[in-house]
Amino acid sequence: MSMKIIGKVFVKPKSEKKIKNFYLWIYRDEISKVSFSREMEGWVDIVNDRGEFICKGFYSPKSSNPVKVFSYDNDFDINTEVKKRVLFSFENRKKMIGNGVLDKNNFRVVYSESDFLPGLIIDKYGDFFGIQIRNRLFENLKDVVVDTLLTLLEAKNIYERSYGDYREKDEKLEPRNIPIKGSIPSLIRIREEDIQFVFDPLRGQKTGFFLDQFINRKIVAAMCHKGMKVLDVFSYVGGFGIYCAKKGADVISIEKNEYYSDLIKENIKSNGVKDRVRVVTGDAFEKIKEIDEKFDIVVLDPPTFVKSLSESRKRLPMLIDLIKHSLALLKPEGKLIIFTCSYNLLKEHFIASIRIAAMELGIRIRVDGELMQSPDHPWVIQMPETLYLKGLIVSKLPSF
Amino acid sequence: MSMKIIGKVFVKPKSEKKIKNFYLWIYRDEISKVSFSREMEGWVDIVNDRGEFICKGFYSPKSSNPVKVFSYDNDFDINTEVKKRVLFSFENRKKMIGNGVLDKNNFRVVYSESDFLPGLIIDKYGDFFGIQIRNRLFENLKDVVVDTLLTLLEAKNIYERSYGDYREKDEKLEPRNIPIKGSIPSLIRIREEDIQFVFDPLRGQKTGFFLDQFINRKIVAAMCHKGMKVLDVFSYVGGFGIYCAKKGADVISIEKNEYYSDLIKENIKSNGVKDRVRVVTGDAFEKIKEIDEKFDIVVLDPPTFVKSLSESRKRLPMLIDLIKHSLALLKPEGKLIIFTCSYNLLKEHFIASIRIAAMELGIRIRVDGELMQSPDHPWVIQMPETLYLKGLIVSKLPSF
Repeated sequence: MSMKIIGKVFVKPKSEKKIKNFYLWIYRDEISKVSFSREMEGWVDIVNDRGEFICKGFYSPKSSNPVKVFSYDNDFDINTEVKKRVLFSFENRKKMIGNGVLDKNNFRVVYSESDFLPGLIIDKYGDFFGIQIRNRLFENLKDVVVDTLLTLLEAKNIYERSYGDYREKDEKLEPRNIPIKGSIPSLIRIREEDIQFVFDPLRGQKTGFFLDQFINRKIVAAMCHKGMKVLDVFSYVGGFGIYCAKKGADVISIEKNEYYSDLIKENIKSNGVKDRVRVVTGDAFEKIKEIDEKFDIVVLDPPTFVKSLSESRKRLPMLIDLIKHSLALLKPEGKLIIFTCSYNLLKEHFIASIRIAAMELGIRIRVDGELMQSPDHPWVIQMPETLYLKGLIVSKLPSF
Repeated sequence: MSMKIIGKVFVKPKSEKKIKNFYLWIYRDEISKVSFSREMEGWVDIVNDRGEFICKGFYSPKSSNPVKVFSYDNDFDINTEVKKRVLFSFENRKKMIGNGVLDKNNFRVVYSESDFLPGLIIDKYGDFFGIQIRNRLFENLKDVVVDTLLTLLEAKNIYERSYGDYREKDEKLEPRNIPIKGSIPSLIRIREEDIQFVFDPLRGQKTGFFLDQFINRKIVAAMCHKGMKVLDVFSYVGGFGIYCAKKGADVISIEKNEYYSDLIKENIKSNGVKDRVRVVTGDAFEKIKEIDEKFDIVVLDPPTFVKSLSESRKRLPMLIDLIKHSLALLKPEGKLIIFTCSYNLLKEHFIASIRIAAMELGIRIRVDGELMQSPDHPWVIQMPETLYLKGLIVSKLPSF
């Protein structure tokens, strides 16, 4: 990719500090003027109101945050820089293997802004690499990313699963879900710890699998033993439920999407837990009301619930209702493992929803542990948006 | 203990819901009137403004929260009830053993409000039980607690370590640190996982050891290997540092209290890591400035920093300064394991302090994991005060 600079972006004084402090997005209202036609796309120098250089970034006119910061150096070769950062991230993840927080075969190699590669996701599933491109910066850098994977990470098989609201609505890019290199089967088979999963790389959620829940799957499985009953709500391809079933638990997995629920059935078969997992295909909000058993553990991992802060008010009653039904299905001392992957659902609101649900049921609850996304999806403190997955281990208690 | 009811406490309408919802303290300004002399102490019926029974509790006139809620039943035998709850907590902790979050020999049996035994702490260290009594309710119930330990938990050795601001300033009780039963040595020797520690049951912090950091000691140790360098600030009797040294790391432990720092030396000797741990005795705020090595891991676990919300403004600059010095001592990609045990330091302020420290140093940081107190110190969501220990695993990153 050529790095021809199309001009300068002048940022307002209030934003200078934030940009210098590694916040990698510049919003439209933070820009006072640009030295080029507003319709152009390309590399820019970001300068303060006195014209002093702050950093270099990429300008895409249609986006609500038109500038993605890329480097605080004035002089660099873009191809070399992308390669360096991807390799740095890869080495960083390899260092995490061995202390139990990361699987050795399957992990997120690059997590976008958290790895200073804004808009780029690279996931590794054994010999397969799935990439996701979210913005026009990496839309233009795709070739160097693929080349990096082939030459430095010795990738044999690469596919692209680029879709989602931000890419399509904000950056105005078409979704693109295609094999890029090697042989990409319709289903990828992986081994995570001692469990096998198949997932669809081009029609699944994210790049096919929820790598961000790896550490949490292990934590929940560690609570299970033979004879326990587990309800896995919003099961996707069966992750939590199958981990629990492997430890001897009897599981009900609820999944709305028929195709995914077929994949759960594949996965329970290949792990030898067919007798211990019952798959219920249907809307979790409805199905959860029809269940009349009690459980030792309920896992509640709903899809993005609150897409904007202003949506909270409308959506929280649905969440509270879901939590109420889940808590009601617990045996005494049973545990609710609850997540939200909505960045826009504030943690205080998340916790308040649980508190309200418990209050309405008249039960006492406590938290035995907090959960977050696995460390291959790290949270950059200067960019709050990089923390999205929040979870709690909640116990039902006697009230005395 | 006799359960003679001295009268009724009428609570204001605004507090009724909160009390029904398992918040176990009633503050002075939540009480509209009492049916007895305000100077009396004893069991009371808590009623709403229409005189309807809500719950039973204990009234101690001098406290800022004079009523401790004890039961929503109108009719119970206090001795039976205490025994039942202690046993319930004990069984609950035993269920947690086996999934790696609790040591099998040493754990908190009763965590006060979280176990619906407000004001009572019971910690188990092998064959020793340490109790801590924080309020007048359990000051009066001490005999039944001791009896429960002897008869139901088969305790051989019991000591009491009752001290602290709340007990002394709020409940106006004298500190009392004494052996109660069996043989209590001046130093207790425990084995936690494969590590030995000695601590002083009657002159140490808490009941002698920081059980609440067990899970976090394991997490930090899992990051260590031979050749790594670790700085353990506010080391107390050496917990984090010795875990890391056992994994091969070279450690510097800083501890201000000379007696505790002698105990660190005992502990490094008995674990065979004398060559790998250097003990620095002195004020961490000063000593940290004198160190001129770089570390792979810095553990920062300061004592209660912010004792009230209003103190935050004054104390945060000290915390930020401490974090700055710690971050500055990290190698590239080094990790800061940082805690606050101050309930009154809001998590947002804690995170902001880290963000500001990083900003002032001009470094990019990220969070690979969130930490909290071990699950034998669970957080009751309806009583926010029961969550006090908050921690983060923070990595130092290149800025590009």
